[in-house]
Amino acid sequence: MVDPRPGRIAALLAALDRANLDALLLTGLANIRYLTGFSGSSAIALVMPRQVVLISDSRYAVQAEEEAGAAAVVDIQPRSLWAGLWHHLGALPGVHTVGFEASHITHRDFQRLMESGARWQWRPTTDMVEELRERKDAGEVEAIRRAGEVATRALDRLLRGLRPGLTEFEVAGLLEHALRDEGSEGFPFPTIVASGPRSALPHAMASGRVVEEGELLLLDFGAELEGYCSDITRTVVLGRADSRQREVHEVVREAQARGVQGVSAGMTGEDADALARDYIQRRGFGEYFQHSLGHGIGLEVHEAPRLARRVETPLPQGAVVTIEPGIYLPGWGGVRIEDDVHLGSAGPELLTHFPRELIEVA
Amino acid sequence: MVDPRPGRIAALLAALDRANLDALLLTGLANIRYLTGFSGSSAIALVMPRQVVLISDSRYAVQAEEEAGAAAVVDIQPRSLWAGLWHHLGALPGVHTVGFEASHITHRDFQRLMESGARWQWRPTTDMVEELRERKDAGEVEAIRRAGEVATRALDRLLRGLRPGLTEFEVAGLLEHALRDEGSEGFPFPTIVASGPRSALPHAMASGRVVEEGELLLLDFGAELEGYCSDITRTVVLGRADSRQREVHEVVREAQARGVQGVSAGMTGEDADALARDYIQRRGFGEYFQHSLGHGIGLEVHEAPRLARRVETPLPQGAVVTIEPGIYLPGWGGVRIEDDVHLGSAGPELLTHFPRELIEVA
Repeated sequence: MVDPRPGRIAALLAALDRANLDALLLTGLANIRYLTGFSGSSAIALVMPRQVVLISDSRYAVQAEEEAGAAAVVDIQPRSLWAGLWHHLGALPGVHTVGFEASHITHRDFQRLMESGARWQWRPTTDMVEELRERKDAGEVEAIRRAGEVATRALDRLLRGLRPGLTEFEVAGLLEHALRDEGSEGFPFPTIVASGPRSALPHAMASGRVVEEGELLLLDFGAELEGYCSDITRTVVLGRADSRQREVHEVVREAQARGVQGVSAGMTGEDADALARDYIQRRGFGEYFQHSLGHGIGLEVHEAPRLARRVETPLPQGAVVTIEPGIYLPGWGGVRIEDDVHLGSAGPELLTHFPRELIEVA
Repeated sequence: MVDPRPGRIAALLAALDRANLDALLLTGLANIRYLTGFSGSSAIALVMPRQVVLISDSRYAVQAEEEAGAAAVVDIQPRSLWAGLWHHLGALPGVHTVGFEASHITHRDFQRLMESGARWQWRPTTDMVEELRERKDAGEVEAIRRAGEVATRALDRLLRGLRPGLTEFEVAGLLEHALRDEGSEGFPFPTIVASGPRSALPHAMASGRVVEEGELLLLDFGAELEGYCSDITRTVVLGRADSRQREVHEVVREAQARGVQGVSAGMTGEDADALARDYIQRRGFGEYFQHSLGHGIGLEVHEAPRLARRVETPLPQGAVVTIEPGIYLPGWGGVRIEDDVHLGSAGPELLTHFPRELIEVA
């Protein structure tokens, strides 16, 4: 496959030029990975017209060179990444105005720029790399698709082993084990396993609660491949569902199908959100769907764009987004169904394939 | 057990008083959890002499009240956490000077304070809550000890199932599954499974590499209980170790034993680091131990204090720290051994119990 990094760096340099910046300091790790390939947990990078510099620490000496050596000059700093920054910036006489990532730098590190970097003019920027990342190329879509396949195969395997009497922790263990066996590089976010009334908590981590016969079980999890995330949710019933469980699940299923089928590039985040929300409201559950419909997904599990009320920017072509309506009835339980959709030039394409009808686990 | 939160809040208020602050805005999630009990992923908090306010979003409406309701006024903001901040600050006429956490706020959010919060004087603070968190109380030490027991039981179970031919992903799956079955609430950091030459990368994530007979296998992982982390590393050999593997492992084992036995409250971070480093240097491997000896552990897997060169502050009594020397020979492999130690009033106490002699997995 063609190395996508030169094209990404060129697109960023064009944006720097339009913003009258001589260089951009990157402190967001996902942005650094997107441009250089480096996947470690400690780095800053400097993008300049003739050079990209990646600065990391000694734990990553070998890995940084392997992953990023073709795209960047790698500098390993034993004491402080910032020492490397001053060194490289100081060596370039033409660099005066330097952008920094206002959403990815702490106030404390910003103060370092003001104090030790007083020679340069520092300009806050937002989303310069994120805007490039919104539009996925074919390789990125393929990585997310494969991460989706890993997730759905793991879910299939979990459901074959699921039975009442397990704790939520044990269910998470079975699911995460299956994800690893299928090749997941890790867990993009803490696995949500929420049973019975806990399924009414939209963000419940797994707990020691025992899952009982007849209860709802909400599973929200993802896989990671080549750094790219998938994110999927299904809500099942252990044993036979009652009529209330069927009704709520059916409303969410229909709302989610409307979202998946109706979403497309060019529509605003608010209009996308309304595809599912309007239906849930008409069915009388509007007040029980309080979160937004979805979010972009890629190197991070939550990234631009947002599918939510009051988001008036259009969804960009090429984005991959989640569609995840839910209904949460306090004290009773909740249902959420989530898939990942690519907003391609030929229309929306579902990347996660798993039945959305209510599953009653025998 | 006595609720520790009122005492923690009182200690923080005393520190605010000494710093001439009327209030402190908390944006660090671990600090918020320490003071209020809230464990979710989206919150800010405001600590004032007569009131603690926790502001979260609608996904956490039920959970925030359950976890933090006894320690704080909970305010759920559907649109922006910051709207809640202006509301609560504005309702208190005596509040003029407000601290914020310079290491836990982005430059972008700092700009919100400057723009929308121009009525108040904002003062950067660092480590006000972290300094309280360094000294663990009995309940915290007990949670870390139990998280250590979960980790060592999981490791024991993994070693019984380990065999050549598994991928690193599959090994991670077995280990993480065992951690869940033992009750771990999650994974404090991405599991490190590094085999053969990959064990020379101190921070290698698990990969698709197949683990072969006769190879080193480095396992670095942790468990989480009541939000508290353990962190342990063992390096084993699949099958019979050769003489080089034995030699390197023995140097690391002896260095780690010296660290565990010699570390104590009152000694500087640099002197603690030297306990193991000096021995490794004398044995001729100094240049292959490039990271620091250890770090504090608690609600976060990396927190204060640091056990490293050039750290001249003394280790506080009550801290829990890791002791984790390693030797990494590029192209050959690496060995690291790590345990968690409580620096109690009666001397250092090991919290993770698992053999440190070289294990040859049959």
